[in-house]
Amino acid sequence: MSPSLPTTELSATSKPEFYAAVKAQIAAVLDPTLTQTANLANVSSVLFYALTDAPVSRKINWCGFYLTEKTAETSAKRRMVLGPFQGRVACTVIPFGRGVCGTAAATAETVVVADVHSFKGHIACDSASESEIVVPILTKDAGGSVVVEGVLDIDCLEQNGFDAEDKEGLEAIVAVIADIFKA
Amino acid sequence: MSPSLPTTELSATSKPEFYAAVKAQIAAVLDPTLTQTANLANVSSVLFYALTDAPVSRKINWCGFYLTEKTAETSAKRRMVLGPFQGRVACTVIPFGRGVCGTAAATAETVVVADVHSFKGHIACDSASESEIVVPILTKDAGGSVVVEGVLDIDCLEQNGFDAEDKEGLEAIVAVIADIFKA
Repeated sequence: MSPSLPTTELSATSKPEFYAAVKAQIAAVLDPTLTQTANLANVSSVLFYALTDAPVSRKINWCGFYLTEKTAETSAKRRMVLGPFQGRVACTVIPFGRGVCGTAAATAETVVVADVHSFKGHIACDSASESEIVVPILTKDAGGSVVVEGVLDIDCLEQNGFDAEDKEGLEAIVAVIADIFKA
Repeated sequence: MSPSLPTTELSATSKPEFYAAVKAQIAAVLDPTLTQTANLANVSSVLFYALTDAPVSRKINWCGFYLTEKTAETSAKRRMVLGPFQGRVACTVIPFGRGVCGTAAATAETVVVADVHSFKGHIACDSASESEIVVPILTKDAGGSVVVEGVLDIDCLEQNGFDAEDKEGLEAIVAVIADIFKA
């Protein structure tokens, strides 16, 4: 069942305007009193349809989350488990450092891949995906150290699907999402 | 990122054959060692695309889960919170007894609604949805009492989207899904 979203204008012509509008929608949808799953499920939907609906109409085929496993304590064995997403059935476990998602998690830096087939160690899951952006979800622990809570992963059916403005816009959105991970 | 599914035949012409094939796919995807979120996220994807891909090509616009809140102890206040899904942004909280989902949860019985607009107490979330089926996810506690763990909710853009064979097929699938809820 789907409620109406706030009628934020998503037909803005520039990417910065587009991402600012989507960020406002996502901030309106997030409810820190609910489960992380409920929040991330709705966020993946808002973002997926914002990117794929007309007039934006980008060829995004997967949009969702991988979440750092809480039980893994040593950094050598850290891994992420599939979270809520929009798209086709997905890999369930990604070790830190493996593939595009694992690289973003291990480095705590966004990874933009223009052609996934040329990315060393790419996990060849869906041959339909041609480019990818992975943004780490970062918080800080009590001591001020950066904690990688997981990643936002978006796949595109075309090469060069994501540029510097996408990176900037999605990082700002992920910063809002990161708030629900804080204790 | 999406792995290849087992190439179960989904082009079977009868609904019982179709649901048997989807059930096999879902059983293959489920991994009880992983999180409930990872499992339900992939299940909603398998089921959504099985129903909407050619040659089945049904006009399903939402397919996902609402999960009984674990902190609510008295039956009078029981409610469900949004779980993983495929489709547009969704209502986050549904009290037991409210709308189609809440009725299925409160009665522990599948509810098939041919025309959602005629269902008393229907939560009018997405005006695009015309019919709906909600299947409760049932387990038993140590004393043998039925526990409603949540519901599978599927919406259709056409009236009369679901019949007795859909009910039977989806109930068999939900019985497989229920296994991951067992302690």
